[in-house]
Amino acid sequence: MSTLIKNGRVITAADDYVADIFIEGETVSAIGKNLPIQADTVIDASGKLVFPGGIDPHVHLDMPFMGTFSSDTHETGTRAALFGGTTTVIDFVLQKQGHSLKEALAEWNSRAQGTAVGDYSFHMAVTDFNDDSKAEIKDMVENEGITSFKTFMAYKGALMINDSQMVGLMQEVKKQGGMVTVHATNGDMIDYLVARHRSEGNVSPLYHYLSQPEVTEAEASGRFSDMANYTGCPGYIVHMTCEGALNAIRNATRRNQKVFAETCIQYLVLDASLYEQDFEGAKWVMSPPLREKKDQEALWAGINQGLVQIVATDHCPFMWEQKLMGKNDFSKIPNGHPAIENRIELLFSEGVQKGKITLNKFVEVACTNPAKIFGMFPRKGTIAVGSDADIVIFDPEEKHTLSAKTHHMNVDYSGYEGWELTGKVKTVLLRGQVAIDNNKCLIDKGYGQFIKRSKVSAII
Amino acid sequence: MSTLIKNGRVITAADDYVADIFIEGETVSAIGKNLPIQADTVIDASGKLVFPGGIDPHVHLDMPFMGTFSSDTHETGTRAALFGGTTTVIDFVLQKQGHSLKEALAEWNSRAQGTAVGDYSFHMAVTDFNDDSKAEIKDMVENEGITSFKTFMAYKGALMINDSQMVGLMQEVKKQGGMVTVHATNGDMIDYLVARHRSEGNVSPLYHYLSQPEVTEAEASGRFSDMANYTGCPGYIVHMTCEGALNAIRNATRRNQKVFAETCIQYLVLDASLYEQDFEGAKWVMSPPLREKKDQEALWAGINQGLVQIVATDHCPFMWEQKLMGKNDFSKIPNGHPAIENRIELLFSEGVQKGKITLNKFVEVACTNPAKIFGMFPRKGTIAVGSDADIVIFDPEEKHTLSAKTHHMNVDYSGYEGWELTGKVKTVLLRGQVAIDNNKCLIDKGYGQFIKRSKVSAII
Amino acid sequence: MSTLIKNGRVITAADDYVADIFIEGETVSAIGKNLPIQADTVIDASGKLVFPGGIDPHVHLDMPFMGTFSSDTHETGTRAALFGGTTTVIDFVLQKQGHSLKEALAEWNSRAQGTAVGDYSFHMAVTDFNDDSKAEIKDMVENEGITSFKTFMAYKGALMINDSQMVGLMQEVKKQGGMVTVHATNGDMIDYLVARHRSEGNVSPLYHYLSQPEVTEAEASGRFSDMANYTGCPGYIVHMTCEGALNAIRNATRRNQKVFAETCIQYLVLDASLYEQDFEGAKWVMSPPLREKKDQEALWAGINQGLVQIVATDHCPFMWEQKLMGKNDFSKIPNGHPAIENRIELLFSEGVQKGKITLNKFVEVACTNPAKIFGMFPRKGTIAVGSDADIVIFDPEEKHTLSAKTHHMNVDYSGYEGWELTGKVKTVLLRGQVAIDNNKCLIDKGYGQFIKRSKVSAII
Amino acid sequence: MSTLIKNGRVITAADDYVADIFIEGETVSAIGKNLPIQADTVIDASGKLVFPGGIDPHVHLDMPFMGTFSSDTHETGTRAALFGGTTTVIDFVLQKQGHSLKEALAEWNSRAQGTAVGDYSFHMAVTDFNDDSKAEIKDMVENEGITSFKTFMAYKGALMINDSQMVGLMQEVKKQGGMVTVHATNGDMIDYLVARHRSEGNVSPLYHYLSQPEVTEAEASGRFSDMANYTGCPGYIVHMTCEGALNAIRNATRRNQKVFAETCIQYLVLDASLYEQDFEGAKWVMSPPLREKKDQEALWAGINQGLVQIVATDHCPFMWEQKLMGKNDFSKIPNGHPAIENRIELLFSEGVQKGKITLNKFVEVACTNPAKIFGMFPRKGTIAVGSDADIVIFDPEEKHTLSAKTHHMNVDYSGYEGWELTGKVKTVLLRGQVAIDNNKCLIDKGYGQFIKRSKVSAII
Repeated sequence: MSTLIKNGRVITAADDYVADIFIEGETVSAIGKNLPIQADTVIDASGKLVFPGGIDPHVHLDMPFMGTFSSDTHETGTRAALFGGTTTVIDFVLQKQGHSLKEALAEWNSRAQGTAVGDYSFHMAVTDFNDDSKAEIKDMVENEGITSFKTFMAYKGALMINDSQMVGLMQEVKKQGGMVTVHATNGDMIDYLVARHRSEGNVSPLYHYLSQPEVTEAEASGRFSDMANYTGCPGYIVHMTCEGALNAIRNATRRNQKVFAETCIQYLVLDASLYEQDFEGAKWVMSPPLREKKDQEALWAGINQGLVQIVATDHCPFMWEQKLMGKNDFSKIPNGHPAIENRIELLFSEGVQKGKITLNKFVEVACTNPAKIFGMFPRKGTIAVGSDADIVIFDPEEKHTLSAKTHHMNVDYSGYEGWELTGKVKTVLLRGQVAIDNNKCLIDKGYGQFIKRSKVSAII
Repeated sequence: MSTLIKNGRVITAADDYVADIFIEGETVSAIGKNLPIQADTVIDASGKLVFPGGIDPHVHLDMPFMGTFSSDTHETGTRAALFGGTTTVIDFVLQKQGHSLKEALAEWNSRAQGTAVGDYSFHMAVTDFNDDSKAEIKDMVENEGITSFKTFMAYKGALMINDSQMVGLMQEVKKQGGMVTVHATNGDMIDYLVARHRSEGNVSPLYHYLSQPEVTEAEASGRFSDMANYTGCPGYIVHMTCEGALNAIRNATRRNQKVFAETCIQYLVLDASLYEQDFEGAKWVMSPPLREKKDQEALWAGINQGLVQIVATDHCPFMWEQKLMGKNDFSKIPNGHPAIENRIELLFSEGVQKGKITLNKFVEVACTNPAKIFGMFPRKGTIAVGSDADIVIFDPEEKHTLSAKTHHMNVDYSGYEGWELTGKVKTVLLRGQVAIDNNKCLIDKGYGQFIKRSKVSAII
Repeated sequence: MSTLIKNGRVITAADDYVADIFIEGETVSAIGKNLPIQADTVIDASGKLVFPGGIDPHVHLDMPFMGTFSSDTHETGTRAALFGGTTTVIDFVLQKQGHSLKEALAEWNSRAQGTAVGDYSFHMAVTDFNDDSKAEIKDMVENEGITSFKTFMAYKGALMINDSQMVGLMQEVKKQGGMVTVHATNGDMIDYLVARHRSEGNVSPLYHYLSQPEVTEAEASGRFSDMANYTGCPGYIVHMTCEGALNAIRNATRRNQKVFAETCIQYLVLDASLYEQDFEGAKWVMSPPLREKKDQEALWAGINQGLVQIVATDHCPFMWEQKLMGKNDFSKIPNGHPAIENRIELLFSEGVQKGKITLNKFVEVACTNPAKIFGMFPRKGTIAVGSDADIVIFDPEEKHTLSAKTHHMNVDYSGYEGWELTGKVKTVLLRGQVAIDNNKCLIDKGYGQFIKRSKVSAII
Repeated sequence: MSTLIKNGRVITAADDYVADIFIEGETVSAIGKNLPIQADTVIDASGKLVFPGGIDPHVHLDMPFMGTFSSDTHETGTRAALFGGTTTVIDFVLQKQGHSLKEALAEWNSRAQGTAVGDYSFHMAVTDFNDDSKAEIKDMVENEGITSFKTFMAYKGALMINDSQMVGLMQEVKKQGGMVTVHATNGDMIDYLVARHRSEGNVSPLYHYLSQPEVTEAEASGRFSDMANYTGCPGYIVHMTCEGALNAIRNATRRNQKVFAETCIQYLVLDASLYEQDFEGAKWVMSPPLREKKDQEALWAGINQGLVQIVATDHCPFMWEQKLMGKNDFSKIPNGHPAIENRIELLFSEGVQKGKITLNKFVEVACTNPAKIFGMFPRKGTIAVGSDADIVIFDPEEKHTLSAKTHHMNVDYSGYEGWELTGKVKTVLLRGQVAIDNNKCLIDKGYGQFIKRSKVSAII
């Protein structure tokens, strides 16, 4: 089976040219000007942008959390991702404290296998680092294709590991050729502030925000960087939200160190003023919370300065009814926000269209860097000969409006209800198959494959 | 006329894949796996790397300086560049104080036109900013395709402009859509130290080094960044050599600013211990001088951290007899060092082979970023459909030895005599023509074209 | 002749106790609880603070500037100082470019000798550093008791020296045991901005402010610190106004360097909003200009952090008629502001009373540090056995209002008209003599002595 | 009873003069030139320095630790302190986890009362912050005169509190007008490194050093500063040893914050090369360990820059037999080092005599600042009318040699065996009594009083 995409303006992390793309089977086999080739399917991309399928390296699908599950399954979540131009996601397997990594992986496999529509991979969240889990790291890297190990410096008693465990894990992961990623906020400080606010009867979503001040993230980001430097282990900070955290890794660069940083689309375009509206703010209760305008500026600049490499989502949707669990106590609001479908379009509209980033940078942070940093490149993350034909055909001028009524995520509200965007995903191919076209999903659940990942390096 | 390069491992700033490249006329027209195409010429690149022709944005050819001329003409210099895998260079037109930019351009054109073998462009060095030269900026940008304006914070009385002129120039250049580049060292401090060392009878090359301590560069780099920030003008610091200067621009990132930085290959691989050997050190008398090992480390890290975007050469060769002009007075040694031919191979051997940078980063800093930052992209700097077929075929494993006996630069010594490198340029195409093959140059003087450049942006 | 000050609460830079102070002749001879001693004069200081006479190390009396003279002579200026609790001032001798330091000193001596009411010393402003003035440095330090050398990085063509001269001066001053002080703003940048604003018809006092943005001071402060570090010369930055400049010297501390910093009372209590009121703003046209609230906060903190050692005034008054010289051109407004009489009371009321600094810190920055840093200690700057009996008796609770109607400075407006302060100077002794009492000056012109100063050190 | 000290050169934190000091009862009643007063005792101090009795705010006497007790009791420790010119010490009461502050205080009182020779006070170490201990803070501050609360970020399971507790404690202490002090090292990281080294059979004292790398202290110092800033609580970091930690609080100054810092004499004069000599290094096994030469430089500079306010000792001696408990396992070596008797003389000889600090700074950091920062001023810490007559008469030129054979601390080795110092304590008065003279202690155990302390402020 072959497909020819004609006359699109092809954008990669580095390039920008008009050409035809010829796909045979699952991969790109030729790119050229007016390719004199016959194909089973021909798509006219004149006037459109053609860029690699997005990769969202931070999503939580069907995740047990706070007594419930995030509302997107691997089916609904990866399908919504495809609608939004994201062809591959990396979900998080969460070790249960007292249990093995393997058990956790088995559980996640049981939910994802055969249900995913789009491609996916797993990070392994190590929540209980000890001699047993230490012994499993090698197997994960060598055999399971899971090379990134997520840690939490918050959520004590559930997910958090302490600095002893962190240093121990880093030394083992470095040895095995992996990378340690981190939710970098000071859990102890946050626990104290949560308890104090609750004890004083301050229970609205605003207090979720006030319980996680910038310092809790800046501090932990610096501490993580210190440990990564000490151990020499490649490090990656997920969902960075603020100037203080960015400065922590900026400081770390002075010792010739590189720590990768990911921000999420919401931190670039939303701010904490949303928490001021009573319980409505629960829509954006996530951790870390939204920040200030000055933080948005710092993050956009950080992207261009090369300090922030990836824009992800931390997609973790909950139905409004689930959010209501915290009606009378912000600490019971399930943390998370739906964005898997909106990331690419928001980043294009707010970033490229408004002159904040170039088209190449857009592709770099949304598609290519996730593949490179997490060991899926060059199979994923680019449009190049031999790479998977994961391709987005995008109309850069089409205006449309985001809404829960029209989105495909399994969640009954949108964090961006009514936002008018410029630029829309029109057609999406996943491994050569047209997955999305004309606003319909043309592939079935189970089409999505698990992507084994390679060892990682500290340089990209 | 068409050419097919078969089976090479193609490396761009983003990609890495094995494919055939089909060239029609001067540009790439198709890239694919086993392209079923006939071509006039077929080159087998199996087992070889295939990457874009290098761009050296900092060379001085046939330049009048200190009463003599740099020893490479546009002919010999661009030819040597081609032997070393560099297909395009950007040379510097130097305004004479009291004269116009146009006069200077005419003079440079008279030397370069019809003589260049490889492609070239010009930066305009503004050495006398006043109402007259201010009025010429627009013409340079709009009509001459010269969009970058070089300034000197040193060489008072000859090239230096003061901070009044700098701010004035920045405001005008910003208005016209250009960029200001800078030789950022504190000329006044250096002048004082030179005078003092000479007055004390310290006249060996070592005192050239001691007259330009790190602080003179760190200070000026910070000052330039301050002015760039104040005016909002895109800024670019040439030949950055040291940790202090890198820290100055690192500090500048805190105010959400980006200043581009270029280092040169010699600062990455040589150090100041070379000055300790009596007059022999004159070979490396250049400004700024070589620095310490700790500076090399900082610069390599800076490249990976995204703070240093380009590796150039500041190629400015002088024959040993010319260097001898300063036998008894370091301040009379013509400043400069030959490297135009060695840059790509040194960067590969010392950078990629030793694990300091990735292949993609290698292409990014040696080929792609110069094109992007200086407005020649996507025509130059990449291998992509529609781009000029400026292509290097490179054997990553071949070992060879650098020597003045075998190099093609018009200079009778090598700064790297006897260095054994791994990785060698085998074949070079320039706009579709095989320019270098089998260690011979196959194109004539005059083949090289002047490349008009576009307006620049502060983000890449 | 002897005097006994009874029962005051004595405050020094370190101490705080209630005691009697016994003065014989010009110096303190005993301090004790209920001293059983007879004295010619007895002053009851019960309920009062008793602290050392203030030292204002930055005043311009009878100074030729911009075609006129500052309106306070050594007589009126030092008398006003005494009314405000300042017993010693350091005035600036200004070398004329093309002339010697000695000539300048002779000129200043001719104006000050026999006219000063309070004690005074001189800094020597070196505006033309060359072999001749270099040769005079030693004489100044060894014979004239002038050990601090002021430099200007602004006012090109009149006062400014370039960085060659600065480094040369620093090396000589270091050799002779002196200190280099600096007006640290980038004169070239300012000249450009002044010219541009004038050319655009923007001539109100507000444009004075806009011609000297924070960056001009931050940059120059960093550059000066760099040069001081390189040469190892003790350095002192006068009239620091802003966070940016403070950060420049904070950064410098990382290389184990100390650069002394002085702010002035106006920068602690006034801000740039005063320039928004048409020509009225001319009252506060000084260089550097007033800054923002955030800068005030940074400066107060800097005092407590030990980064800012002195609070001076840069007293340089001009009559309103003189200010009117710049009615149609801010660049013609004589720069300067009257504060010599207000410094101590403002610092007490705004600093101590509002809890920003302690009483000891108040004395340290207004009295003791100026004596120590500038080589007049322990003769001046403290209340201790053997020290000059320069003593202020101060009512910490008395409220009063500042006004041009009641002040003693020879200037027809006040920068603080109508300000209500808490704390008032009641009695002032200078070398044992009651100089001020009951709001009258009891000593005559000519009483003031020139104070020769010792060599300085970089540590206090 | 009265004493007259004649003709000494009196040094305080601010002053330097020659005078007689007249003491009546326990306090100074007059200071003057040739005081015409009769006294019961007359001491000739001609040619001597006379400065305030030293205050060592960081000592551990008779402290239960690691299954043994520090070898100096309150009797032997305070007596040795007096021999070394230190008249007041602040010892640490250690709450036992699961027990109250009151219980701990009672225990310490039972050991110190009636036994101390010199004056003493207590810090309260809060090792178990919870609602019960929270409720005791007010009582400590208001009734017990204990206003500083020590915390440990290391020694998990014994002394360490987590960041939740730290923030909670800070908020309560701030409310009550106290200060939080901290042992700022990352206990979790250290625990990991200790365990790892032991598991690898690396058990010599060198591995004590390697288990507490600079980063463990720099990180925790920054984290503590962050929490102090967030809560607004005055903070104080004990025994700072390194550039990294100093930089952490230097960074903190940028947000207009002040965190007090204490170093100890050993970190200024000894370095980690001492650990390279097999088990002999156990003499200097303390936490944090000794550091590098570059850290010494940074600390001396930090003192002059105003970033380090106090030089203490962390005196915690153990007999060699006790040290031998860790013969085969560095983690079992009791941590601590004797210095209570050596601090003043070492600081004078290594600091003042070698030109690193001034005499005034010497008194400031060894005597005055401890009194001011910890609420004992002006009773203690200075020589001033009304202050306790705690006075050291010191021969600045006398040379002598430190040795365990001659020292008075109850420990059978010296950390400075054979060191030749210049400057020796000759006579010491404590509250008017001659305590030390002619190398004999003239007062008995029980003379030492407990000093209640005042509330503290964040500014001095």
